[in-house]
Amino acid sequence: MPQPERRYVITFGCPDRTGIVAGISSFLAEHGGWIVEAAYHTDPATNWFFTRQEVRADSLPFGVDELRERFGRVARDLGAHTNWRVTDTGERRRVVLLVSKEGHCLYDLLGRVASRELDVDVSAVIGNHTDLAGITRAHGIPFHHVPFPVNDPEGRQAAWAQLRQLVDVHQPHAVVLARFMQILPTELCAAWTGRTLNIHHSFLPSFIGARPYHQAHGRGVKLVGATCHYVTAELDQGPIVEQDVIRVDHTDSIPDMVRKGRDIEKVVLARGLRWHLEDRVLVHGNQTVIF
Amino acid sequence: MPQPERRYVITFGCPDRTGIVAGISSFLAEHGGWIVEAAYHTDPATNWFFTRQEVRADSLPFGVDELRERFGRVARDLGAHTNWRVTDTGERRRVVLLVSKEGHCLYDLLGRVASRELDVDVSAVIGNHTDLAGITRAHGIPFHHVPFPVNDPEGRQAAWAQLRQLVDVHQPHAVVLARFMQILPTELCAAWTGRTLNIHHSFLPSFIGARPYHQAHGRGVKLVGATCHYVTAELDQGPIVEQDVIRVDHTDSIPDMVRKGRDIEKVVLARGLRWHLEDRVLVHGNQTVIF
Amino acid sequence: MPQPERRYVITFGCPDRTGIVAGISSFLAEHGGWIVEAAYHTDPATNWFFTRQEVRADSLPFGVDELRERFGRVARDLGAHTNWRVTDTGERRRVVLLVSKEGHCLYDLLGRVASRELDVDVSAVIGNHTDLAGITRAHGIPFHHVPFPVNDPEGRQAAWAQLRQLVDVHQPHAVVLARFMQILPTELCAAWTGRTLNIHHSFLPSFIGARPYHQAHGRGVKLVGATCHYVTAELDQGPIVEQDVIRVDHTDSIPDMVRKGRDIEKVVLARGLRWHLEDRVLVHGNQTVIF
Amino acid sequence: MPQPERRYVITFGCPDRTGIVAGISSFLAEHGGWIVEAAYHTDPATNWFFTRQEVRADSLPFGVDELRERFGRVARDLGAHTNWRVTDTGERRRVVLLVSKEGHCLYDLLGRVASRELDVDVSAVIGNHTDLAGITRAHGIPFHHVPFPVNDPEGRQAAWAQLRQLVDVHQPHAVVLARFMQILPTELCAAWTGRTLNIHHSFLPSFIGARPYHQAHGRGVKLVGATCHYVTAELDQGPIVEQDVIRVDHTDSIPDMVRKGRDIEKVVLARGLRWHLEDRVLVHGNQTVIF
Repeated sequence: MPQPERRYVITFGCPDRTGIVAGISSFLAEHGGWIVEAAYHTDPATNWFFTRQEVRADSLPFGVDELRERFGRVARDLGAHTNWRVTDTGERRRVVLLVSKEGHCLYDLLGRVASRELDVDVSAVIGNHTDLAGITRAHGIPFHHVPFPVNDPEGRQAAWAQLRQLVDVHQPHAVVLARFMQILPTELCAAWTGRTLNIHHSFLPSFIGARPYHQAHGRGVKLVGATCHYVTAELDQGPIVEQDVIRVDHTDSIPDMVRKGRDIEKVVLARGLRWHLEDRVLVHGNQTVIF
Repeated sequence: MPQPERRYVITFGCPDRTGIVAGISSFLAEHGGWIVEAAYHTDPATNWFFTRQEVRADSLPFGVDELRERFGRVARDLGAHTNWRVTDTGERRRVVLLVSKEGHCLYDLLGRVASRELDVDVSAVIGNHTDLAGITRAHGIPFHHVPFPVNDPEGRQAAWAQLRQLVDVHQPHAVVLARFMQILPTELCAAWTGRTLNIHHSFLPSFIGARPYHQAHGRGVKLVGATCHYVTAELDQGPIVEQDVIRVDHTDSIPDMVRKGRDIEKVVLARGLRWHLEDRVLVHGNQTVIF
Repeated sequence: MPQPERRYVITFGCPDRTGIVAGISSFLAEHGGWIVEAAYHTDPATNWFFTRQEVRADSLPFGVDELRERFGRVARDLGAHTNWRVTDTGERRRVVLLVSKEGHCLYDLLGRVASRELDVDVSAVIGNHTDLAGITRAHGIPFHHVPFPVNDPEGRQAAWAQLRQLVDVHQPHAVVLARFMQILPTELCAAWTGRTLNIHHSFLPSFIGARPYHQAHGRGVKLVGATCHYVTAELDQGPIVEQDVIRVDHTDSIPDMVRKGRDIEKVVLARGLRWHLEDRVLVHGNQTVIF
Repeated sequence: MPQPERRYVITFGCPDRTGIVAGISSFLAEHGGWIVEAAYHTDPATNWFFTRQEVRADSLPFGVDELRERFGRVARDLGAHTNWRVTDTGERRRVVLLVSKEGHCLYDLLGRVASRELDVDVSAVIGNHTDLAGITRAHGIPFHHVPFPVNDPEGRQAAWAQLRQLVDVHQPHAVVLARFMQILPTELCAAWTGRTLNIHHSFLPSFIGARPYHQAHGRGVKLVGATCHYVTAELDQGPIVEQDVIRVDHTDSIPDMVRKGRDIEKVVLARGLRWHLEDRVLVHGNQTVIF
């Protein structure tokens, strides 16, 4: 694949009023900014305005730092004090993956990275089991084993501290719970807020918590699904980024549902992660705008 | 459309063991029965066997009553005392529809009936409002208005009694709650058990009860759905016959979700009703086998 | 449903360059125009810029005619001489439907109109058979019968002339071939260009022409589909507005495929028509941008 | 995953008549055969009967060879001389994969095999390029490089001979063209008939041949798809095993369509391969029955 041209990505949100689009686009036009992609949305319920713009880096007479400084002034004038970001696609995205024993999401993500479909750096994979160490290292990626002892609060606390350190050293753009079977402590939810993605193996809000395929089979549903969402302190309640479903019928046992569901988990997580890393996801309360 | 050939439909369930298929198929072969369609299923969790068979009526040397009597003996020998039925496609199916104000499911069903895609008799439409009287009568179908007074328990009880009478006079094969906004009393759930279908405007078990699209919007889901299920005494908890979903995104307001969801409600209800009337739905606990 | 607020809809296309968004949005901001919905797209292959904007009518100090005149100057300055339109949602959309014998699309559209989900005027339904006269008139809509004689070129030419007159008197925003089984002559394709929608009962470009479900069955496909496209002089080759598919399997006979396909035809046509009437479809060569 | 119980799988086809089901099921019942799964289908157009049955191996008093001999007599009595098979799930399935440069299908299949979701032996991967040698060997699977020289008919013939030898030594149950960019010679299509699966990156019969995503983009379709089919001498014309689609829109460039399409190619190929290896696919003319 050819190297995509470098772009600056502006995301922005503020209370809606007239003149916002004009304000932003005039600022860009003034400096010759070539807008490659632009999206706008207004939420009438909360009267909130959102936009995301991709500008060719080489069309502007200054770099990302000066763009940030100059755009910051425009943003403040328009009423957005903190709800804006300017990122640079020239900076490679770093991702840390947390896993347990089930490997389908890991295999899938590593395959996408290896084929450069997902052109990011997987800085590390951390597992509370070692089952997936081999495939990780075969891809040339460091694997760290952090066991979580059962019925040992202190040991678990130490494990979380070690895991946190192993993650934070990379300052990753995304921490992905790729079927990681431990519930993140509140302080980590807070520390990594807005960049921790989980894949839940049900169509939320159905079947929150453990063994969702068993719950789904018991209820006799005709579709099973998967949900990629940001992790928040409340279990399986964070803002939803992506969902999808697949049809099942009475011939499907629970293992069949698990197997079919995996194909959905994989693509839903991969889509959600891509959108997050491309700054396409704007969180608004418990909802997301996907540009 | 040409008249489809007349068939007898056998449905049957019993504890699984060897020799059931042989027992049934040998009985049919012995009398020259030409099996046009046959389906089998075994539920390993409960060790229950299910089958549905369609036999050409003209291939058997006797009529449906004698088939019932003879097959009843086979069924008892195989251990199925009440879990079997023999129906005759030559007997036209009768359906009563219950409606309120929202007409999309009614319009859809009447269109299918008028074009003979759904080749059944709509014996009556009963509404607790009169909004849909006109279109019903334009299709040549009787419309009955049974108002349900608010805050008047006696008046409501009388309304239910009247509605029940209007339904029961037709001995319908199916009573369809086509967006009927009243909760069926327990005694009617019991009286019409196994033949009362509801369309719920969510992907159950998500968003049980009132205003599911509002609930869905609030949770920020990326798909909305609909569920056709048998009505039981517990609200929105009956066996699911069919479900489907449609994608929504952040640009969809609640009215947009309502509009998109309607297209799913219509097809899900139409499919569920068709399968029910063709004796394709076998209920097993709170699950359904759809042959 | 409450009356939606009145809006002006601007659609616009021109060769891409910097400053277009700024030009349009500054013009609107200058007059206090409140943008309710805005979408942008650039096609890199042809370097073409597209936008669609909805502005609250009551936010501007002038009416639609003056908006058209003023915006026309902006458009010309930006290089769009004819590729722009300003429409007023306050003007009710008029639609003429052409039908033959199969009624599923007509029933569906009439149901949507009757329930005001599709809030337009069906000015007339014209059929080359009379099968659908009854339901049309039951909805209070004029039905015209224009028979097309077989093997009678002059008779057919007269029929087309009559049909054209019956359509043109309404100056409809859309002419919909709702399973109309006659091929439009080239001069009508030209006269009604950009506002004639057809529903083809296959997933184009598969199975062009007659009896697509028979073709699909013969090829053993696992999904059947439907395509809503603008009618052009070349049969089934016009720009595609919407498509969808539904799963079939080996148990589906051709009539089953026809039946299942109808549910897709209905929604695909309804979506395409809605988008067309809301000025959401911008044609670019043989492709469409759907805003 | 626990070891699934060993089963014998019977597939069978013959002209339809009464008594076939009785004949087969009585034979099985006579020997105490426990039918775990059974499916039947009749094609009315060709009056052909199909069945597939799974019998618990431990329920029969003899092994697979004697079952084959005894069932062969039943089959001949019922008129099926060659259209039947008895296979043993106790025999591990062997698969050979042919690849070129694009790895997404290979990565996907290897991940499924490694996680034992697809519990088969990949005997070898053969590539006409070496790009995918590393990941193959990381999974402990032999990789063979067979280059296909351009404009060198003799060299190519030698390459095909070498490839054939590398495949045939394993007597694989399936030869999978996992985005292998060479067209199989007629004699190999014949030699491997009924066990060579290809994944074509379009919804056939649309966009046969080269660069289907480019064709799809040019036509402006709203969905792209993938097709898993048996390879026959006529390019992209073999019996279809599975198809699926994914939605695209005007914002999707050709590389976007390629990327989205890959997710469909992967699951369609994986499903098709699973069904083939489980003897679920019965070919009938150019159609398939999937049990």
